[in-house]
Amino acid sequence: MSGRTARRRVVRLTLPGTGHQGNAAPRAEPRADLLAVEEPLGIRVGGEALAMTMRTPGDDIELAAGFLVSEAVVRSRADVAEIKLCDGTSCGHSDHRDEDLGNTADVTLASGVAVPMGARRNFMTTSACGVCGKTSVEDICVLPHVPLASDQTLFDPAVLAALPDRLRDAQRVFSRTGGLHAAGLFTAAGDMIAIREDVGRHNAVDKIVGWALLNDRLPLSGCVLLVSGRASVELVQKAVLAGIPLLAAVSAPSSLAADLAEKAGLTLVGFLRGQTMNVYTGLHRLPEAATASSR
Amino acid sequence: MSGRTARRRVVRLTLPGTGHQGNAAPRAEPRADLLAVEEPLGIRVGGEALAMTMRTPGDDIELAAGFLVSEAVVRSRADVAEIKLCDGTSCGHSDHRDEDLGNTADVTLASGVAVPMGARRNFMTTSACGVCGKTSVEDICVLPHVPLASDQTLFDPAVLAALPDRLRDAQRVFSRTGGLHAAGLFTAAGDMIAIREDVGRHNAVDKIVGWALLNDRLPLSGCVLLVSGRASVELVQKAVLAGIPLLAAVSAPSSLAADLAEKAGLTLVGFLRGQTMNVYTGLHRLPEAATASSR
Repeated sequence: MSGRTARRRVVRLTLPGTGHQGNAAPRAEPRADLLAVEEPLGIRVGGEALAMTMRTPGDDIELAAGFLVSEAVVRSRADVAEIKLCDGTSCGHSDHRDEDLGNTADVTLASGVAVPMGARRNFMTTSACGVCGKTSVEDICVLPHVPLASDQTLFDPAVLAALPDRLRDAQRVFSRTGGLHAAGLFTAAGDMIAIREDVGRHNAVDKIVGWALLNDRLPLSGCVLLVSGRASVELVQKAVLAGIPLLAAVSAPSSLAADLAEKAGLTLVGFLRGQTMNVYTGLHRLPEAATASSR
Repeated sequence: MSGRTARRRVVRLTLPGTGHQGNAAPRAEPRADLLAVEEPLGIRVGGEALAMTMRTPGDDIELAAGFLVSEAVVRSRADVAEIKLCDGTSCGHSDHRDEDLGNTADVTLASGVAVPMGARRNFMTTSACGVCGKTSVEDICVLPHVPLASDQTLFDPAVLAALPDRLRDAQRVFSRTGGLHAAGLFTAAGDMIAIREDVGRHNAVDKIVGWALLNDRLPLSGCVLLVSGRASVELVQKAVLAGIPLLAAVSAPSSLAADLAEKAGLTLVGFLRGQTMNVYTGLHRLPEAATASSR
């Protein structure tokens, strides 16, 4: 396993400003740049490969655990017997190179827990016409075992508005690559519970959810999950399966993300920037928005 | 198949500005918001499901074609006999709902062309220890059949610097959702050849590459591919397999993206913003950068 960032020699080009002669040459300076590391993590369950994800190394056991929650394979700490990073010995391979160590997470499920036929990565590659007709939210997404509707936490827009700055400040501490997505878990009062970063925003969320699973904190009732980018249907599904009642994104949601959020009873907030936000679904958890909507 | 955008009723919350009373209520206005549509597209080859991707509808035949190039299944127009959108009849199913029509691309390869064992979606889900030890660039990525090194096009930094604005202007014409990634293909002189948008940036690039395949323009020698976000290893691979000598990203590349670009002879430019850019690999195609690097 490598670090989270890698130093690389680059050349920075700066064009001459306007007002200069038209044929002035750009200024070129060699410099060191810090890049976000992207490497594959294989996830094996009971000795069988389940998936591979391109991720930023770190929190890999959490990532594997969260992936299993998001795929509806496990629901609680008790469903997982053990997760360890493959070190060559446990894989039964003797030809591993040094740099491969730790790039596979080896999961042993608790007795009686199995990967369901519906696990999405499998579904995606089933043969024949397996994907025809799978266009509705019900077909694509695993709906939650515990309906979110029972989570009656109310959220304060002023608290939500403060979260993006808090996420950025925490992120700044350990990454200056410009290439990492962040996901942050907060209480309804705005206190940060956990933050994770990754080149893939789905991985950042899986790391949060896996952390919660391993610490026996699922479902994450009463919590807010904030993501640094857009909200895809995949992220909505992850929030729903983790029992998170409010998903906030700095950028736009997709249509299907809003559809699934509606169906699952998730409050979906988008374009959370400065003093404004759009509330797409689950208005009842933001009383101010609910009032406006009923007018 | 649906449209590319969907209208949705949302509530826009605006917090009272600083200087107001502390307990002033946020302003809430119901309004219509335009969301980027996200829907699954199944890709079948010879009647067998190969992959499913969550995409923004539109240019689906190009998307399927480009996906096959990116997975190293096809290299030229002649490798594809036919691609059609599944309309129920061709799938042999009679229970399709109206909204499912067109959400599967049915590919027939030319005689003698087959999906190789190494096609990535299959690789990702092979059983046993299939992913252990696959951590180097050579293991993960398909390298190009035509080395990019033979493409000796030179590029002008001033031309590159003008491309992000051009991409944004073109994008503005048909999308105001804030939720779409864009990919643009340009000549070395800065002329726009094609632009495609999608909720997934890999899909936007596949749509460009598929367009090129179907118009018999592969390899895309002498061209620039510009992406609106970050450059992952996946995007580098797509550029390399399409024979594009220069990939530029508005944001950061990952470490593995730079590694693969180096190996494949691709010029990788990141943080292309305003008057500046970072050149990560393939300096020789930007003579100004090459000079600075040798100092």
